[in-house]
Amino acid sequence: MTIMTPPLDDPLLLTPGPLTTSAETKRAALRDLGSWDADFIALTADIRDRLLAIAGATGSHVCVPVQGSGTFAVEAALGTLVARDGKALVLVNGAYGARIARTFERMGRDHAVHETDEVTPPDPAEVAARLARDPAISHVAAVHCETTTGLLNPIEQIAEAVAGQGRRLIIDAMSSFGALPLDARRIPYEALVCCANKCLEGIPGLGFAIIRREALAACEGNAHSLSLDLHDQWRELERSGRWRFSPPTHVAAALARALDQFEAEGGIAARGRRYAENYRVLVTGMRGLGFQPLLPEAVQAPIIVSFRTPDDPRFDFDRFYGALKRRGFIIYPGKLTRAETFRIACIGHLFPGDMARAVEAVGAAIDEIGLRVRTAATA
Amino acid sequence: MTIMTPPLDDPLLLTPGPLTTSAETKRAALRDLGSWDADFIALTADIRDRLLAIAGATGSHVCVPVQGSGTFAVEAALGTLVARDGKALVLVNGAYGARIARTFERMGRDHAVHETDEVTPPDPAEVAARLARDPAISHVAAVHCETTTGLLNPIEQIAEAVAGQGRRLIIDAMSSFGALPLDARRIPYEALVCCANKCLEGIPGLGFAIIRREALAACEGNAHSLSLDLHDQWRELERSGRWRFSPPTHVAAALARALDQFEAEGGIAARGRRYAENYRVLVTGMRGLGFQPLLPEAVQAPIIVSFRTPDDPRFDFDRFYGALKRRGFIIYPGKLTRAETFRIACIGHLFPGDMARAVEAVGAAIDEIGLRVRTAATA
Repeated sequence: MTIMTPPLDDPLLLTPGPLTTSAETKRAALRDLGSWDADFIALTADIRDRLLAIAGATGSHVCVPVQGSGTFAVEAALGTLVARDGKALVLVNGAYGARIARTFERMGRDHAVHETDEVTPPDPAEVAARLARDPAISHVAAVHCETTTGLLNPIEQIAEAVAGQGRRLIIDAMSSFGALPLDARRIPYEALVCCANKCLEGIPGLGFAIIRREALAACEGNAHSLSLDLHDQWRELERSGRWRFSPPTHVAAALARALDQFEAEGGIAARGRRYAENYRVLVTGMRGLGFQPLLPEAVQAPIIVSFRTPDDPRFDFDRFYGALKRRGFIIYPGKLTRAETFRIACIGHLFPGDMARAVEAVGAAIDEIGLRVRTAATA
Repeated sequence: MTIMTPPLDDPLLLTPGPLTTSAETKRAALRDLGSWDADFIALTADIRDRLLAIAGATGSHVCVPVQGSGTFAVEAALGTLVARDGKALVLVNGAYGARIARTFERMGRDHAVHETDEVTPPDPAEVAARLARDPAISHVAAVHCETTTGLLNPIEQIAEAVAGQGRRLIIDAMSSFGALPLDARRIPYEALVCCANKCLEGIPGLGFAIIRREALAACEGNAHSLSLDLHDQWRELERSGRWRFSPPTHVAAALARALDQFEAEGGIAARGRRYAENYRVLVTGMRGLGFQPLLPEAVQAPIIVSFRTPDDPRFDFDRFYGALKRRGFIIYPGKLTRAETFRIACIGHLFPGDMARAVEAVGAAIDEIGLRVRTAATA
C-alpha cells in the first residue's frame, strides 16, 4: 500500500544499468507529450539523427528505436535482419552472448555458437576460418563489451574477419556505445544495437538499432514478432514520423536531454575519457585495499570491473552489499559460472570523485565486517 | 541539436494514451533505482499485488509485467498462452482487434477472425455457435473498449459464451482496465492485458497481463520470443523478484505512485465515475456545438468518443487540430475505414472542468476557422 518517498539522495548505482542519470535528464521527463503530435515527431527525428551521427553512420545507416529494454532491441535486430532461412554464428564468452544464442533458439532460426572462455576474447582468425568452412552462415552476432565480466571483445578485428568472408555483423554494443568508438565509417557492421540507459545516460525503456539502410530495406516480413519488427517500425517512422505503437514519450524526452549533455561534454571521446578515469580511480583504489580484478588489463573495458571476492570465509556478498548501500553505493553481484566475483561499474552520471568515495566506502565496509581482503590472485 | 524546454503547462492530452498524468506521478520518476536492489524488488512486488487486487484476481491469477507498450504486452500474452498447435478466434471490430489477428499471423499461429462492422459489437450467441462448430479453437481474443471508435464490446456476455463452450478468453483491456469493472471473480477470463499509461494514469513504457496461475504454469516454451515470454518472466519474478531484463525503473516508480492516487480516489468505481462525468460534459458540450458522436450511446464507452467531422468543406483536420493545440488541447484523428471522424478522449488526469474548457476551445476554434458545424447525422 505504501510506496517509497524519493529520498534527497538515492544511492549511486555502480551497476551496468539502469544506472545513475543526471537530475537534468530525469527532469526532462516531467511532461506529457502527445505521441502523434508534431513536437514528439520532431523529438523522435532529432534523437534518431543524433544517434546516427554518434555512430558515424549518417547516410549509410538508419536509426530505428524500439520500446522495451536493450534485450528487446537486440532480439528485434536479430529477428528482423537474419532471414528465416539464414544462419547466424554467435560469438559467446559470457551471459549476453549466450542470451543471443538463446534468442535464436527461441525464434527457431539456424545458428551456431563459437564459444571461448569467459575471460578470453575470440580469435578473429578462428572466426574467419569457421566462416570459410560454413558458407551457410549469413550473419555473425557479437557482444562488444561483455558485462558478465567487463571484457572488451576485439570488435574491429572481428568486423574485418566477418567482412573479409563476405558476411554481415550485428554488434550488441549495449554497454559500450557512446563511450568507446564504434564508427561505422571505420568498422564495417550491418547493425549495432544499444539502448537509452547505458553510456548515453538516459533513463531505461527504449532501445535502438543503427542498421545499414540497404540491408534493412530487404528485410520485410523477416521478423518473428509484430512488436519487434524493426523493418515495419522503420517504414512507419519514414512514412509518418510516428512510432507504430505507443512510444515511451517520457523516456524519449529524457534521452533527448541526455544527448544534449553528451554533446556538451564532448561526445564519445570525452565520455570515454571520464569513464576511463572513473575506472582508473576505482581499480587503483580497490587494488590498494587488496582487491584483485578478474581480468588482465589488456582485455578489460573501462565500463564494469569484476573483482575476485576475498578468500576470507566471512565474506558474504549480501552483507557487503548492505554495508555499501548504507554508505550510498549500489554494486552488482558476479554473473560468472566459475570464479567468485562481484562487479562495480563506472558508467553513468558518475565522476572520479564519486569513484574515490566509493573506494572509501568499500574500505569502511570491510572494516565494519572485519574482512581480510587479500584475494586469491594476489596471494 | 536543440530540444524543447518543458513549458510550464503542456497541452492537455485528450488522446487514448500516452495521456495526461498528474505532476505527482511524473515526479515519482525523479530517481534512479537499482533494478536488482531490494527497494525495486519490493516496488515490483507491490505493483503486481495491487494490480491483481484491482482485477479481483488475487489468488486465482498472477500479474506479469513486461517492458514496452501495451501492444508488446498483448503480443506477449498471445504468444505465451496460445500453444503452438492451438488456435485462436479473434473478435474484430476495429484496428486493435485487427492488430491481434496480425500478431497471430506474424507468429505463425492458427487463428480465425470473427469480424463485425466498426460500429457493431459481436453477438455472443454467434461467437458461441462459431466455437461449437470449430472444436480446434482453444482461445478467444477480444478487445474490451475498441478505441478505434470508442465502442464498448459486451465482454461479460462474450466471456460467458466462451466459458460455456469450454474455451479460454484473452481480453485486451488496454483502454478500460481501471475505469470499467473487469472483476475476475465475475468474468471468467484466462488473461487480461493492460498497461501503465491508460486508465491507471501512469507514464508509458510498461504493460502487464493478469493471467490465471494454472494456465500460465502450463505455458513453458510456448512463446515465439525470448523478450515477450511471460512464462519465463513470471518464473524469474517468482524465483528472485527480479525482471529478467532491465526494467523501466522510472516508469515502474511512476506507476506505483499512480496506483496510490488511484486507490485514494476510490478505485475503479470512482475513476469510472470521473471519466463518465468527463464524457457527459464532453458529449453534451459537443452536441451543443452541433457535433454528432459516431456511435449510439448504447455501445459507447466513456473512454474516447468519435465525432463525425462537419459537412463543411472548409473543415481540415490539421487546421482544427492546430487551433485546439494553441488553446491547450491535443485531440486525435479518426482511425476508421469508412466514416470521417476525429476523436476526443476523456481519460487521464482530466476532470470535468477540463472537459468544459475543451468544449469552449472547440467552440473558439470553429469560430476562428469560420466552420459551419452541423454534422451529417443531425442534418
